[in-house]
Formats: sequence, C-alpha cells, structure tokens
Amino acid sequence: MTHSPALALMPANESTRDVALELYAEVADAPILSPHGHVDPGMLLRDDPFADPAELLITKDHYVTRLLFASGVPLDELGVGPAANADPRSIWRHLAENWHRFAGTASAYWLEHELRTLFDIVDEPSAENADALYDTIAAWLQNPDFRPRALFDRFGIEVLATTDDPLDDLAAHAALAADPDFRGRVLPTFRPDAYLDPQAAGFADRVTRLLESTGRPATFAGYVQALRDRRAYFIEHGAVSADHGVLEPYTTDLDPATAQDLFAQALKGALDARSARELRGHMLFQAAKMSVDDGLVMTVHPGVRRNHHRPTFDAFGPDTGHDIPVRTEYTENLRPLLEAFGTEKNLHLVLFTVDETSFSREIAPLAGFYPSLYIGAPWWFLDAPDAILRWRAAVTETAGFYRSSGFIDDTRAFLSIPARHDTSRRLDAAFLARLVVEGRISRPTAGRIARDLVDAIPREVFKL
Amino acid sequence: MTHSPALALMPANESTRDVALELYAEVADAPILSPHGHVDPGMLLRDDPFADPAELLITKDHYVTRLLFASGVPLDELGVGPAANADPRSIWRHLAENWHRFAGTASAYWLEHELRTLFDIVDEPSAENADALYDTIAAWLQNPDFRPRALFDRFGIEVLATTDDPLDDLAAHAALAADPDFRGRVLPTFRPDAYLDPQAAGFADRVTRLLESTGRPATFAGYVQALRDRRAYFIEHGAVSADHGVLEPYTTDLDPATAQDLFAQALKGALDARSARELRGHMLFQAAKMSVDDGLVMTVHPGVRRNHHRPTFDAFGPDTGHDIPVRTEYTENLRPLLEAFGTEKNLHLVLFTVDETSFSREIAPLAGFYPSLYIGAPWWFLDAPDAILRWRAAVTETAGFYRSSGFIDDTRAFLSIPARHDTSRRLDAAFLARLVVEGRISRPTAGRIARDLVDAIPREVFKL
Amino acid sequence: MTHSPALALMPANESTRDVALELYAEVADAPILSPHGHVDPGMLLRDDPFADPAELLITKDHYVTRLLFASGVPLDELGVGPAANADPRSIWRHLAENWHRFAGTASAYWLEHELRTLFDIVDEPSAENADALYDTIAAWLQNPDFRPRALFDRFGIEVLATTDDPLDDLAAHAALAADPDFRGRVLPTFRPDAYLDPQAAGFADRVTRLLESTGRPATFAGYVQALRDRRAYFIEHGAVSADHGVLEPYTTDLDPATAQDLFAQALKGALDARSARELRGHMLFQAAKMSVDDGLVMTVHPGVRRNHHRPTFDAFGPDTGHDIPVRTEYTENLRPLLEAFGTEKNLHLVLFTVDETSFSREIAPLAGFYPSLYIGAPWWFLDAPDAILRWRAAVTETAGFYRSSGFIDDTRAFLSIPARHDTSRRLDAAFLARLVVEGRISRPTAGRIARDLVDAIPREVFKL
Repeated sequence: MTHSPALALMPANESTRDVALELYAEVADAPILSPHGHVDPGMLLRDDPFADPAELLITKDHYVTRLLFASGVPLDELGVGPAANADPRSIWRHLAENWHRFAGTASAYWLEHELRTLFDIVDEPSAENADALYDTIAAWLQNPDFRPRALFDRFGIEVLATTDDPLDDLAAHAALAADPDFRGRVLPTFRPDAYLDPQAAGFADRVTRLLESTGRPATFAGYVQALRDRRAYFIEHGAVSADHGVLEPYTTDLDPATAQDLFAQALKGALDARSARELRGHMLFQAAKMSVDDGLVMTVHPGVRRNHHRPTFDAFGPDTGHDIPVRTEYTENLRPLLEAFGTEKNLHLVLFTVDETSFSREIAPLAGFYPSLYIGAPWWFLDAPDAILRWRAAVTETAGFYRSSGFIDDTRAFLSIPARHDTSRRLDAAFLARLVVEGRISRPTAGRIARDLVDAIPREVFKL
Repeated sequence: MTHSPALALMPANESTRDVALELYAEVADAPILSPHGHVDPGMLLRDDPFADPAELLITKDHYVTRLLFASGVPLDELGVGPAANADPRSIWRHLAENWHRFAGTASAYWLEHELRTLFDIVDEPSAENADALYDTIAAWLQNPDFRPRALFDRFGIEVLATTDDPLDDLAAHAALAADPDFRGRVLPTFRPDAYLDPQAAGFADRVTRLLESTGRPATFAGYVQALRDRRAYFIEHGAVSADHGVLEPYTTDLDPATAQDLFAQALKGALDARSARELRGHMLFQAAKMSVDDGLVMTVHPGVRRNHHRPTFDAFGPDTGHDIPVRTEYTENLRPLLEAFGTEKNLHLVLFTVDETSFSREIAPLAGFYPSLYIGAPWWFLDAPDAILRWRAAVTETAGFYRSSGFIDDTRAFLSIPARHDTSRRLDAAFLARLVVEGRISRPTAGRIARDLVDAIPREVFKL
Repeated sequence: MTHSPALALMPANESTRDVALELYAEVADAPILSPHGHVDPGMLLRDDPFADPAELLITKDHYVTRLLFASGVPLDELGVGPAANADPRSIWRHLAENWHRFAGTASAYWLEHELRTLFDIVDEPSAENADALYDTIAAWLQNPDFRPRALFDRFGIEVLATTDDPLDDLAAHAALAADPDFRGRVLPTFRPDAYLDPQAAGFADRVTRLLESTGRPATFAGYVQALRDRRAYFIEHGAVSADHGVLEPYTTDLDPATAQDLFAQALKGALDARSARELRGHMLFQAAKMSVDDGLVMTVHPGVRRNHHRPTFDAFGPDTGHDIPVRTEYTENLRPLLEAFGTEKNLHLVLFTVDETSFSREIAPLAGFYPSLYIGAPWWFLDAPDAILRWRAAVTETAGFYRSSGFIDDTRAFLSIPARHDTSRRLDAAFLARLVVEGRISRPTAGRIARDLVDAIPREVFKL
C-alpha cells in the first residue's frame, strides 16, 4: 500500500472513494471563508517575514506545545511564557524527536500537510533530520513568497475574521481595509467575555474603562449601552459576529432592578458565586438581545475549564495547553434565551461544543426547530478527522446539512488554515459519498450540498 | 456509481454487502409487528380516503414541520395548529422547495421510500415539479387501494398498537376487533402520563374524572385502584403494554402515609416541585408493581423536555416540533424499582432513550443482568440509519441481541410504517453481516438472529 | 463468505486489511504483559488441574453468569454464591443452550477463541452438543499441558499482576518468586479501597487491623503511615501499582486537623455521607502523594455502582453481575490532585472509565497536557471490539498513541488472557491500518506504534 496525498482522508472503499473524489474536486479550490479564528491582524498589516520555524509552527500553537509538555518537555524549553528565551532550533528539535508521539493527532496531519505543500518536505521529522529540516524551512521563510500577505493570497482566503477585545481600536483592521495593495477582507470579532463575567480577574477595572471610553454612566443600563456602543464600532469596522466563551451556556432574564443590584455589587467585587452566575447568565441573554437589534451573529463556545493547572497558569499565563472540557448542557440553559429570541429573524446563534454528547441529544434537535440556531462545526479537540465524521453522523439525521454553520478553523496557526479547510472539505466529501452509496441522498444533491457547505452556507450563517 | 434502491442502507464493502443482502432477504417480507405507535384507530375504522398529500405527509408529522419551521416557513403556513387553514398545495410546495434541506435526515429517507414504493415517484421534489407531484399523489389517493385498510393489508401489518388515554372508551378498537372484514390486530396502549404527573396541567380534574368513572374513593389507594381498573379495561380490549413518558426515570417507594399525603396535596394543587417529583417517582414505581400484577409490558420513554418554546406551545399546542432531549440517568433512578421488581418474571420493562450516552454505560449493563429489563430500539431522533448502527454497536457487546426489544416505529405517519421497518431490517442485516465478516458471529447464527429480531424477539418482549 | 480465524477482527476492506495483517504479524507473538488483573496467584503456586469446564469457563466469570441470569437462569443453577452446589455439567448445559444469546458479545468471542485454540472445538455450543463438548473439555483438563503453569508458559505471559488486599501476606507471590521451576513474574497489586472508604462495610475493624499489624497509632498520620508501610511491603514483593476503585474520582486536599477529625469520626462510625465523601476524596489525594513518594503507579477505576441489586448481593455476595456504570466526571474532580501532583515526574496516574463520554471530552485532553496522566485501555463493558475502536478514535486525535496505557486484561478468567490480548493487538492493527490508508500516518510509523503498544508503552507506563 503506497499512500498518495491525493487520497488523504478519502474512504478506503473504492466505490465510495470515487464519489468522494468527484465531490471533493468540486470544492477543493473554492475560496476560503474563515469567519472565526485568532490570527493577529497586525501580522498581515506589517507583513514581516516569519521569524523562525519554531515560532511559526510550535511556540504559539498550544495544540503542539501541550502534547510536547505531556511528553516530558518543559514549557520554557518550548519558548512558552513571558520569560521564554529558548533557542528556536532546539525547540524544533524537541518536536522532531517526539514526532511519533503526534502520530494520529490532527496537529500532526496539519503539520505534515504544511511541510509538504509549503516547504516540499515529505520526510517525517526525526532526531536525525531535525537540523536539516529546520534549515530548509528557515530558508523558505526568507523568500518573499512566504510573507503573510503573499500566503494570504496563495491560500485563497477571501474572508478572515480575527478575535478582538471590545476596547481594541481596530486600527490594524482599518489600515488593512484602507490599504489598496491588500484585497482580502479581515474582519474583527467582538469578544466581550472578560467584560461579561464578574468573576473574571480585573472585571471591575475593565468595565470601568469600558464605561469611561464610551462616556456611559456606571449603571447596568449604562453598561449595556456601552457594550452596544462598542459593538456598533466593531460593525463599522466590518465585524459580523460576537463570540462568547463561557463555562456553561446558562441564560436568564433578570428584572432590571436585580440586574442593577448585581452589577453594582460586581463592580465592588462583592458578588458571591451564585449571584455571579446569575449576572453572567443575564449578560448572555442580553448579548442575544443585542444581536437581535444590531445583527451581529452570536457564536457561543462553552464548556471549557480554562487554566486547569494553576501553577502553569501562574508561571506561563493563559492558552498554555491546560484548558480542559467539561460536560455541557444546552437544552435547559438556553431555554430562557430561546423562548425570548429563538424565532427572531435577525438572530443567528451558532452553538459550538467540545462535549460530543450534545450533538445528537441537544444541539441538532434545537437547530432542527429554532430558525435562529445553527450547529457549529466541530471545535478544538473535535476538529479532527474522525471527530468531524462523528459530528456529521450525529447531527445530520436530525437537522440535515443546512442547519450547520460551515467550517471555521478557529486557529492562531496561520499556516494551518489551508490544511484545516482542506481537511473539512475532504471529510464532507467522504461523508456525502457514503450517503450517496448507501442510497440516502442522490449524487446531484450531494454535489449541491458539497458546494453550499463551503460557500452559500457560511455566507448565510455568518452574514458575509 | 448508479445507486439502486435494492442496495439502500447496505454496506459499501462487497463481501459484507453480499452477506447483508442474504440476511435481509430472509426477513424483508416478514409481517410487521408494531407494538408501539401513534396511529389513530379511527382512521382504520372509518377507512376514509386520505384528504390530501399535505395532511398525509406533512401537516401531522412534526418531524417534517419542525425542520421546515427551522428553515423559515411559519407553522401556520404548514397547516399546524388550531387556526390553521393553509392550502394543501401550498403546504406541499414548501416541502418541495426545501427538499434539499432534508437531505440526510431520516424523514427524507422515509418520504423518498414512500414516494417511490407507493406513488411511483422517483424524482426528488423541487420547486419545479412540486405541482406535478402533488397532482400525482392526490390522484393516487382517490384510488381505493390507498384507503387505510387496503394499505394496512398491503403493508403486511400483523399487529399495530395505538396509544390511548386511560379514560378512552376504546370503542374504535372494539369495533375493529368485531369487524369481520378487518383481520389485523389493532391494540390499545395505556398511556397514563397526564394522570401520574401532579404538575401536568389539569391533573386534579383528570384524576377526579378517573375516580368518578371507576367509582373509587379520592384516596391514594383509590387512585391506584382506579388506575388498575382502567388497565384491566385496556387488557380486556387487547392491550399488551402501558407506556410512560417522563422527564426522568426517577423511582421511589414511598410509605403509604406519605403517598396519601402527597396525593391529597396534589389534588388540591398544593404540591411543591420537590414533592411532585417524589409523587411522580412513586407512581412510576407503582406502575411497575401494577405490571408485575397484571402483566402489561411497561415501556418508559424518558428524557424529553416537552414544549421547549412556550410561545409556540401557546399558539400551536403540543407536538409541534420543540420537544428537546435532556441528559437522562437510569442507573440510580431506576434502582428502587429494580431492587423491588427487577427479577420478577411477569415484569417486562423496556427502556427507551434519546440520550445515546446511556446505551453502553447504563441501559446495556442493566439489561445484561435484570431479566425483566429490555433495551428499547432507537427512539425518535435516534431512529435513523447511522444512529441505529451506533446503538447496535453500543449495546450488543454487553448484552447481545436477545436483550433488545425489536423494532418499534413510534409513528403517527401511517404511510411511513413500511419504510421504517424496512430500514430497521436492512440495518440489522448490515450490522450482522459486519460481525460475520469480522469473524465475531457465524453465518448461521446471524440468520437466526435476523429472523428472531423481527419475530420471536418482539413477540416475547411485548407478549404478542 | 467463509470466515477464517486468521481474518478475525480484521477490516473488510482489502487494502486496509492487507496493512492490518502486516502490522498484526509484527506483534502477534510478542510476550504478554498483563499489569492489571484478578487471577489468583495460589492457582499458579499449587498448579492443580482445573476442576471442571463449568468452574473454569462459567461460574467464576461474572461476564458470563450475568447474561445467563438475564436470560432466565437462576444464579444458584450456575454455581454462583456461597450455597451453590450445582452440577458442573448442568451449568455447562445452560451456557450451551443459551449460546445464541451471547452472539456479538465480547465474552462469546473470547470463549470461542478459547474453545478453538485450546480445545480444538470449532462447533458452536448448543443443546445438542453440550454433553459432548463438556466431555471433550473435561478430558483435556486432565492433560498435564492444561495445568496453570503449563498454560502460563504456553500463553507467553511475561508479567502477570494480581490484585491483593493491603494486609495480604503475599506468601503466594513470595513462594512463586522463590520457585526455581517458575520463571514468570507474578506481581501483587495494592488495592486499598476497603481501607479508604469510610462507608465501606467493616471499615473501622479493617483499619484497626491495619494499624495493629503495622504498629501505628490510631491517628490520621498513623493511618497514612500504616498504608505507606504496607505499600512498602508490596513493593518489596514486586508490586508496581496501586489500584483504586471508586464511585467518583473526587479529590480534595484537607488540612491536617480536618483530616484527623473526619478520620476519628470514621473510626467511630459517626461520619455523615457528606463528610465521608470528603474523607474519601482526601484519601485519593493522599494516595497520589504516596505514589509520588514511593513510585507505585496509581490506577483509578471509577464510576461503577457496585451491587446494584441488593437482594442478589445479600444472597450471592459481590461480583455477581450487577455492578452498573454511572456517569463519571474527571475534569473538576481530579483538579486538586493534578494541581498538586500532575507534573510530578514520579507519578504515573492511569485513568480508566466505563463512561465512554469522557474519552474525547476529559481523559484525552487531560492526558494531552499532564505528563503524569495516562489514558487507560477500555475497561470492563468497553473491553470489546467495537468499543475498543471507538476508544482509539476518541482519544488518539487529541493525545496520540503514546499517552495511552497499553492493554490490560483485568480478568479473573485465566484462560481468556490470550484471547483478550490477541483481540487488542488485532484491533490496534486494524485501527492503525485505517490511519495508514487514510494518509494520516505512514506505514513505518504504524509499525513502530504497533510494536510499542505491546512492549515499550506498557513497560514505561507500569514501570515494568
């Protein structure tokens, strides 16, 4: 068995593979729409060459550093954290020596895709070839074709959404939009978590800055209006969505007096855990209300216990690999929000999860009724080949394809964007081909769906 | 790849498919045993022609109307609700125009099966052919061969269970049984939920009517006896099972004084939520006790938050597409019931779920020990090809095939009954064929199991 | 389709099967490392012939007796329980007559493997051949090649861990180690559950014996030291791990005064449920601390409601087939332990589960960060072909292969050990082959992983 990259992620059965390859061919070169991710817009604005292979492929990618850490490599030897000063070549060597430990992970698949398609590297990294591969990549990075904007064009990215603090001035986005030499759409995304969770560190200071910057009074009504002000600013700068990362998707509609009371206590840092939950739940409800009014798509990414290992957080900061999923409940938690806004035409609510159990039990049934609610593509730990196929199998039988969101890459690893979208397209083709061969959909319908999944559907869901 | 209906739902791998086709051939034409469903017995009694394609295939099927609603079609344009007066042809057009949105769902598979086998329609519905298809179907419905009884015969239905209110006089069942021209068995099913849940709207009035109609006193003992009276009446009319739709399968054995106290409060509408849960849990326990005594099979369908969207419920009533599953726990909840009655020979307790996580974790292990407990076939959102195969894979390795219930269609869509049973038979054949090819069961054993799954097993489990 | 045992559990697709067979060939004959199980070391010490087919294959295997019980055979007719005196031949007949009820279960697969490879029996047991098969097996058991030590050699077992009470004198282990005629390693495992759970029946008496036997004072510090003493004794006798069976993996770090207080109450039997949970959680935390200090691998098997059916427990004792899984939470429960010890080099913490939902959501993400934490192989109800493949698919994309534990058979059915390890090797080969064919790992890497999974990985994880 010689494996060909052309057949990657394709079904082993020949009849099914033939259909899958046809379907994939129809979408392989479609433009990339990336309506949610974490790329730094400044990178595209400055268009500097990438520093070195380690920073580009390892240090900033916590999917990669976490598994190296689990394999025994200290984080500071991987360039992680404020005090990091590890040598890039030695960081790269850690990855190469531990390459077999990544076998079967999505990260390994994406990295091999990048090495092959961008750097013409087909050998697997190893202790033996680590230095040679490092030199090869480092040499390519000096090539002007490897600057961020050149890659943006080469990748065929039409839309790239970033994720931004509500008080961000969005200067980078404005500069990119104004730049006649840059034709891509780089859109900000409103991410207000730290302003909505009264238990977030620095909440009171942050909200105070929000109120000052918008000139709104320190009342609950002022607070909500200040958030609306900043959303309007984001919309002016092209934003299409607001993203919410919450521990649980609990929602509640508090009466104004209670909301004011809890808000006042929160500003004083006097809120107990139970009341904090109520205020958080009310703010998720309010966020939906804002979306009904201003049209920003509302994405919700719940169910992750952030910074599970406090000693690592204290030493190295957030996003260092120990965010761990927890069980997540949608049916009861979202009911107040959905009773109030679930049939509003202007609301698009996209639900993500890292708890697979909710796909067939809660998310697909909800999306199969509420016109506002879309099934988010597999996220984070679930954005991987087998998990993606499990997801399609779990949601499609209840809600079809047109209630799903289209793929989002959610990445801060710029080079992985084509690999991730290509993975999604191949797997959707494979999934559709199976349904064709099993007589569950016709071949023409499969073609239409394959095309819509990379074009019409994300454009509709994210109002692009 | 040209798809043939004969190969529908069959494995793509040729060796496996050959075995699957052999196994399927052994059961394809077996009589249909439908021990749980929601067909109106009056339809068979009156034997009127079906009114029109929309009422027949869309309006009364909340699997279909829900996804159209999610796709943007208002429910009143689909003929749903008390004030509905939409034109049948325009309802049909909504479905045809949105046909691609159903691709991959179980409903689409069933509908295509019905269109092909009943109406000789092989084209997919679309905006273009909507009117022509409507006319074709409407013409067929005028044909005497399309009256309910003719279809009942054509479908090969041997037993059809309905679902009925405990105070139903079962006149339709009696008339059918007495009709020399109708040879099918149409059995009532005792469905007492609204009489067992003190928080159900109208509970006190309903129980009062129950007591009056049976002449029992307004005590807890009288209440239990009244339920027993009505079960006896159902048994006289051919009932084999009692069905319980509960939010959670919580059970508890209250002492008589507590039960009496809670019941008295319930009649006064004075029960708090916690006590209501206790009384509900005690009534599920009592229902098992009644089954031990009178032999009615006890089916439990838990874990659905009914009428999730109150505004839709208020305007359109129940069963309008927004019943949403919730996590369901069986191991602890059922323990009191099973400790008391789990090894009783006369009890057959069939557990259904819409929470797939319970299949391998709870339901199969329970059925692998308790002789009274059977694994219910995949229900509702899970009654679909991939979900059915996931179910078999999840439960069989722990409990084998003979602890499962046999297929139930649970449908109010009369025309879908053959499609649903055929789906189940094909998938069981496919599943068994895989085990044969993987050397996990022998070919003769697979044949025996395939036959037993459509005959001996449902007859045993449902005491047919 | 004629099935060949050589192709058992191999993929139906030919390309994938070719790769799988190659990979399997590389590991099929590797020595068996069994670092967790329940075989009686006295059996190997005495080396008596096995008594009869029923005791060997049925009576002591609650996987088998439970499903016979569910099928209507009373436990006492299966030789289960203190008062059992059923005739072995009649026990065997029960199994043979109900053989079709086991089709598709892991137990049937293992038993057929044993019948074929050990007793040259290829016919399926049935009512007709029951006596003949019984006689065949009984005759083989008289053969000296079927004594425990001869089978130990024939099976190629290099290491076999048993499971032992902390106060066990380990005389059997010592005698085996000292026996020049026995070359296998038979290692004790420290299993202190009944000494750590203040709600276990007989807790106070048992702890008192522990304190007396070690000469430690009846304080919390003395209690901890006594446990450390016994762990040291186990380590002297070759133990490599301590095993913890808990209802939930809750951990907490109590201050010394609270621990002392709860311990004193526990000895008096005066602990309420809430405090008992705290003390249990603290002892799991303490167990990790002991492992950091003495190096015993810590295995945790949570999430089983033991002895679900009290009447059966009262009549027949524990391990009689009604231990039922419950939902299990790892992320929050283990956080205190992992914050304290999760990055300790000396700690190896292996997490098992019978709740599949935790694989992709919690266990793989935890093992993908914490160097101390390994993903336990599928356990109990999940140690079966389809469940094993689901497990690999659920964890590998997040954590790769090298964060998993290697196979453990966890069995008290000595004869099933080769069947179980062979099953695991075939399925790992099948899983790896699929990844090769899908272009997700290279063929050479797959070979390395297949070999490491049966050798380097269990040796590292269990410090063999």
